[in-house]
Amino acid sequence: MKLRELGEDRLLAQLLPRLPRGKAVFAGAGDDCALVEAPTGRNFLVLKTDCVVEGVHFLPRADALDVGWKAMMRPLSDFAATSARPQFALITLIVPKQTTSEWVKRIYRGLSRAAARFKVSIVGGETSSTRGPAVISVSVSGLVEKNRCVSRSGGKAGDDLFVTGRLGGANRGRHLRFVPRIEESRWLTKNFSIHAMMDLSDGLGVDLPRLTRASKVGFKIDINLLPRSPGCNIDNAISDGDDYELLFAISPRESERLQKSWSKKFPKLLLTRIGRLNSRFEIRDSRLLRGYVHFQ
Amino acid sequence: MKLRELGEDRLLAQLLPRLPRGKAVFAGAGDDCALVEAPTGRNFLVLKTDCVVEGVHFLPRADALDVGWKAMMRPLSDFAATSARPQFALITLIVPKQTTSEWVKRIYRGLSRAAARFKVSIVGGETSSTRGPAVISVSVSGLVEKNRCVSRSGGKAGDDLFVTGRLGGANRGRHLRFVPRIEESRWLTKNFSIHAMMDLSDGLGVDLPRLTRASKVGFKIDINLLPRSPGCNIDNAISDGDDYELLFAISPRESERLQKSWSKKFPKLLLTRIGRLNSRFEIRDSRLLRGYVHFQ
Repeated sequence: MKLRELGEDRLLAQLLPRLPRGKAVFAGAGDDCALVEAPTGRNFLVLKTDCVVEGVHFLPRADALDVGWKAMMRPLSDFAATSARPQFALITLIVPKQTTSEWVKRIYRGLSRAAARFKVSIVGGETSSTRGPAVISVSVSGLVEKNRCVSRSGGKAGDDLFVTGRLGGANRGRHLRFVPRIEESRWLTKNFSIHAMMDLSDGLGVDLPRLTRASKVGFKIDINLLPRSPGCNIDNAISDGDDYELLFAISPRESERLQKSWSKKFPKLLLTRIGRLNSRFEIRDSRLLRGYVHFQ
Repeated sequence: MKLRELGEDRLLAQLLPRLPRGKAVFAGAGDDCALVEAPTGRNFLVLKTDCVVEGVHFLPRADALDVGWKAMMRPLSDFAATSARPQFALITLIVPKQTTSEWVKRIYRGLSRAAARFKVSIVGGETSSTRGPAVISVSVSGLVEKNRCVSRSGGKAGDDLFVTGRLGGANRGRHLRFVPRIEESRWLTKNFSIHAMMDLSDGLGVDLPRLTRASKVGFKIDINLLPRSPGCNIDNAISDGDDYELLFAISPRESERLQKSWSKKFPKLLLTRIGRLNSRFEIRDSRLLRGYVHFQ
């Protein structure tokens, strides 16, 4: 059935009862605002929003289940970058009137599965029509212990640089089904002092310079060390993007213990030292740095 | 300059330093997630997202300053409905690559002015390209004292129904420049027991049945009592939408004191008793109820 015929209120009546919802939710989807239990004073409230746009982040023929999954997992990957626990999500769905309610329900099934994977409650949202491509925007709130949150800006000259997993080739389908490294990130900050961290969404060649700019340091990586996905070359590993792996900086004194404990805790997930931070900080345009990494 | 030439990183470098940002913000726009001071345990965390879409909520020729203002004020109006204090906002901006950075900056100026009006910090966001109409989505978090939050669902048979301001005619320009009734709502819940409340965004004819459905009550209003904007007829007052006035239910025992105190506190803003809630609750399709109100 087309949304034009169904109407917003009836669509919501079908969607809302199925949304994941934890005990901390006092008023969820369906009222003007969501009301949830506030975190305690030892934590920061953590806020992030992200979106997927048809034709940019997914193709019209993509399975709506995968699209919903990706729309939820993108902001959750930023929670991994911050080592924060996501708790509550708001969904904004902007679709043409001729969209079928089956497609919308499948989007919501993907969103709900992804949220449930990390015990996130979907507590509200908004729908709107558009004459253009579909947009799914997801805002997530959660918390992080004040002594465990990580940002891009704490890297120090001399730090070792690590990446999780393998880079490149996500555009062959993996980008729709990735699992953000929240568990790994929480384990890292529980057991190690992580100086700086981010998730790789635009590709190492763009994202690494963002981390080093924020930390006011330079970097030297050995591109031959980059962990590549099967069938990918170095260019793919640097530039493809949508990897959603973690990039982080840690004191070289901790590197050995990290690598040993990691391989015990996450035997199936690669952890690779790709280089280190140094003191040669220069302000450059990110595209130049991309070229710099790319062509060095 | 076109966004295609400027690039996301340089655009953000120009936008971020100007955003309103209060003391409770530990890490704001520019990092993976925003980190803010969490509210205390006596409060609920309040979450709301809303969006404006070109061609639906604003015309391409509208002043970007007004569009940014409206995009921020829409979710803030839901905070008024909940009697909550907004604190932190995330912006998602989805625009075609040929959009000029001047337009985007003017959108942000409107967003920032509206945020500053209610001491809201803009703590992050996301930009994306699209091949379709522009979308601005705003997610807001804040807090409300647990004993002061209001929803649509607490209305009781016998309650008096009030609306603030005048209804209808917002599409003549007012919808882009409205000020959400946050101050009025906070005053109401500080001084009175408000049983149910909502903001009127889709028009009284659609929104009132939503409140009565949530409260499981019926209603009887005298449409001749409806406070109309200059030049508007009853149809406009019921159906135009975009009023962003408050609709609320209160015990008739409090009505007289309310009206007296209101006219002292807000002498320039009309407060009108439009009818009352009764026990004739029926489940109906919202479009039928709209017709019911419309044609009764």
